[in-house]
Amino acid sequence: MKKVLIYDSTLRDGAQAQGISFSVEDKLKIVERLDRLGVSYIEAGNPGSNPKDLEFFERIGRIKLRHAKVIAFGSTRRVNVSVHEDANVKSLLKADTPAIAIFGKSWDFQVIDILKTTLDENLKMIFDTISFFKNKNKEVVFDAEHFFDGYKANPDYAMKALRAAVEAGADSICLCDTNGGTFPNEIQDITSKVVNEFNVDVGIHCHNDTGMAVANSIVAVQAGAVQVQGTINGFGERSGNANLCTIIPNLQLKAGYDCIPKESMSDITATARYVSEIANVVHDERAPYVGKYAFAHKAGMHADAVSKNSVAYEHISPELVGNERLFLMSEVAGRSAVLHLINNIDNTITKDSPQTKLVLEKLKELEFEGYQYEGAESSFEIVIRKILGKYHPSFELGEFKVVVNEPSICGANSSAMIKINVDGQNEITADEGQGPVNALDKALRKALERFYPQIAEMKLTDYKVRVLDSNSATAAKVRVLIESTDGKEVWTTIGVSTDIIEASWRALVDSIEYKLIKDKEAGQSS
Amino acid sequence: MKKVLIYDSTLRDGAQAQGISFSVEDKLKIVERLDRLGVSYIEAGNPGSNPKDLEFFERIGRIKLRHAKVIAFGSTRRVNVSVHEDANVKSLLKADTPAIAIFGKSWDFQVIDILKTTLDENLKMIFDTISFFKNKNKEVVFDAEHFFDGYKANPDYAMKALRAAVEAGADSICLCDTNGGTFPNEIQDITSKVVNEFNVDVGIHCHNDTGMAVANSIVAVQAGAVQVQGTINGFGERSGNANLCTIIPNLQLKAGYDCIPKESMSDITATARYVSEIANVVHDERAPYVGKYAFAHKAGMHADAVSKNSVAYEHISPELVGNERLFLMSEVAGRSAVLHLINNIDNTITKDSPQTKLVLEKLKELEFEGYQYEGAESSFEIVIRKILGKYHPSFELGEFKVVVNEPSICGANSSAMIKINVDGQNEITADEGQGPVNALDKALRKALERFYPQIAEMKLTDYKVRVLDSNSATAAKVRVLIESTDGKEVWTTIGVSTDIIEASWRALVDSIEYKLIKDKEAGQSS
Repeated sequence: MKKVLIYDSTLRDGAQAQGISFSVEDKLKIVERLDRLGVSYIEAGNPGSNPKDLEFFERIGRIKLRHAKVIAFGSTRRVNVSVHEDANVKSLLKADTPAIAIFGKSWDFQVIDILKTTLDENLKMIFDTISFFKNKNKEVVFDAEHFFDGYKANPDYAMKALRAAVEAGADSICLCDTNGGTFPNEIQDITSKVVNEFNVDVGIHCHNDTGMAVANSIVAVQAGAVQVQGTINGFGERSGNANLCTIIPNLQLKAGYDCIPKESMSDITATARYVSEIANVVHDERAPYVGKYAFAHKAGMHADAVSKNSVAYEHISPELVGNERLFLMSEVAGRSAVLHLINNIDNTITKDSPQTKLVLEKLKELEFEGYQYEGAESSFEIVIRKILGKYHPSFELGEFKVVVNEPSICGANSSAMIKINVDGQNEITADEGQGPVNALDKALRKALERFYPQIAEMKLTDYKVRVLDSNSATAAKVRVLIESTDGKEVWTTIGVSTDIIEASWRALVDSIEYKLIKDKEAGQSS
Repeated sequence: MKKVLIYDSTLRDGAQAQGISFSVEDKLKIVERLDRLGVSYIEAGNPGSNPKDLEFFERIGRIKLRHAKVIAFGSTRRVNVSVHEDANVKSLLKADTPAIAIFGKSWDFQVIDILKTTLDENLKMIFDTISFFKNKNKEVVFDAEHFFDGYKANPDYAMKALRAAVEAGADSICLCDTNGGTFPNEIQDITSKVVNEFNVDVGIHCHNDTGMAVANSIVAVQAGAVQVQGTINGFGERSGNANLCTIIPNLQLKAGYDCIPKESMSDITATARYVSEIANVVHDERAPYVGKYAFAHKAGMHADAVSKNSVAYEHISPELVGNERLFLMSEVAGRSAVLHLINNIDNTITKDSPQTKLVLEKLKELEFEGYQYEGAESSFEIVIRKILGKYHPSFELGEFKVVVNEPSICGANSSAMIKINVDGQNEITADEGQGPVNALDKALRKALERFYPQIAEMKLTDYKVRVLDSNSATAAKVRVLIESTDGKEVWTTIGVSTDIIEASWRALVDSIEYKLIKDKEAGQSS
């Protein structure tokens, strides 16, 4: 198997994405996780442009990595400045990494219009900077910015920029489609020409502005590139960078290249989610391989065929990338998808049992009200239990009242009073919290813990609100999703109402009921 | 310019996506919008599998379209059933569309393992069904399901399936990468072979399971395909279908093909958003061409260069697709991006003015608290006004109190009391609503309308909540974004707090202040 070096730039080019800002702690966590995945290079920052990065490089230098080399990224020396006196070059050296990536111009128009210098001076800037770091025994990657646009405008000059880097001793030259506008056939032609021209490793760095960053990276590898730059989840400016979570399985599982250790492949879904979590962005659930819906089946016909034979509608087995098959619950789901869930509760029920029909009808009715059980299967399980007569509420609500006072800078500003009944015993209590949902959540748990001490084990880990009919904004229906965990399992429940408190309440009740049902059944089976 | 026929399947294959469910009204609206965009075909439903679709086809038949032909989609007749007696074939005929798409198997394994019939019977199913519709004078598209997987497994049989369709009179044969696992080089080879073999139009239908659906469609066109099937925003099962909002500008603006009327191209961003809105899904703001961030610049260096020359970091001009350039406000934005906004308020301020530094420092501080002004520039404008001394609050809050009662099935369950002061005059009032935010919003407007009657013109159009630190769920910080309009302009404001009511309050106040500032300035300038 031919080796392809995976070069991750999540912490540098990925951090240019809208909405992403990594702390030093975030970066350290991500480096360790990427090293565990087994990438070859981690481009972790631009010490010249961001002083926060210097602290990071100092700390990362003390951590031993198993697979990856950490790379500091920066530009060539400035125009008409000695490389020894250039502030950015000094910062790069100070980062004290084993490898350095230097970016430089290879498009004549940019040299003249943006740098406002001569074509010759730009070549000297590349040569001087790379020579400087080679003399310091660094591994050096040359990133040829705008290489494809440059090559199309002036192939001679673009090649001269690469030659300056190679003559200065660059260990690899990376061709960047900086504006992301290049087509696969162009990538193939131009990459082949470069591979044939030089005796150093050639890399590829694509952006997704034409939606083809992944394909362009693949095509470049097929044309002889051996280093692929990209980011986890395709994070990056504008429409993002080439998505390594797609490229790695594409190359390794489907095209016979060796990118990361074989045993790491099933960690790629978890890695992708981990990085989304740290970056604090909503994970793209439609992402190939690593999205929750990458192997989800909705249409009755497809779901049916997948049950018969998974090759029918899946290009790879989801387990290979640590993901799983999902049958989506929806009006058009068809019986076999719904039956799958019903059988988890009662395996004597078949596709033609009357209960299956009742569940499908109820599902349709609830979807009409705004419920969407795709992603909230735990709430749907409770719906099924109610229909099958396998649901016994753990408590009954007497009443509640929540009071929210005017904004305060910190501390609790809301209080909730709640009255519940468990097996004939009343409990009335109250608690306060930051906002009405928090106050209500705390009061409900407080009231229930007397009866069900295991509720103390569970906590809410995510809380999402979606407005359903955005034309009436604050008075529109809202859908609340609550994700909970007890350290053993994670489950999601849903509530829909015109009132955010009521929607939250419904999701909260389902979450607690799910926990209690789960524990009761575990108790029975053990 | 070579013509490429755009075949939209948003309403059929797109509707298989997780979370998407179109009503008949939704479908009618989307058909009209797609026709306005100028696509050639609209595959609008599968009347055999969805009875709701028959009502839709009846209604759409009465509407005159300018560009598009409406297509009903369905499978070949069933195994060993006469085509005249097949229920699905009857439904297709009943749909009464000018064109029909028939899907059939071309992968031998699927014929034997899924259909459980002979290879010959499958060819007859294709031939009989297409002949039937050709005898009824329909235009017929044959969708060869799993064509690429089929071709790789048994090229002879895959070609035989196409030949059965062509001999039956199919007007076009569409090659489907149903599992989305095919690579661009394979698409190119196999499409070329089909194009050379048959004298009918060849189409391409790709799924995005390897993240290459757009590139695969482009490569197929370059290999001779003249019909491209896909969906708006790439909606579709699993990782989605080929995204027409990327393919159309790729082909027409960058590769010289003619897909839609020239004057429609600048409507594509609005069309993409419109379809997201109707489908009730969050628009993908990173999407090439049509996402809010497709032409957004964050890094100081890039934003600087774009200001100098837009070709430097943009592959096309955003206006061509009806989108716009965006300078993102963030810690790393750099002065030139922030200055752009400052100059909207006071154009005497320069990059080096002390106020520019103060604004950047305040931005950093607020981002640390959880504010993100990317997407909420109106709130950031108020921050800048405060620093420049150009902000005079329209009112002062005395106090408020909100009471939420226990869940009720319908009607108002929350009430809010509010006391404000405008220029020394107190106003105390109250209102009720569905949930605390709605009650508070209504009470605040009621109190203010006495002083500022133009507030009646504005309404909230979207309300979004994001939990910032999801590890503490209901007690975590929340970020609320409120989108408002007065019919002339749309603006977005932000509030952050541990309390959802307080965060909503802050965004609400900014929204109202923004409206009043805007009106005051318009009054001064007119």
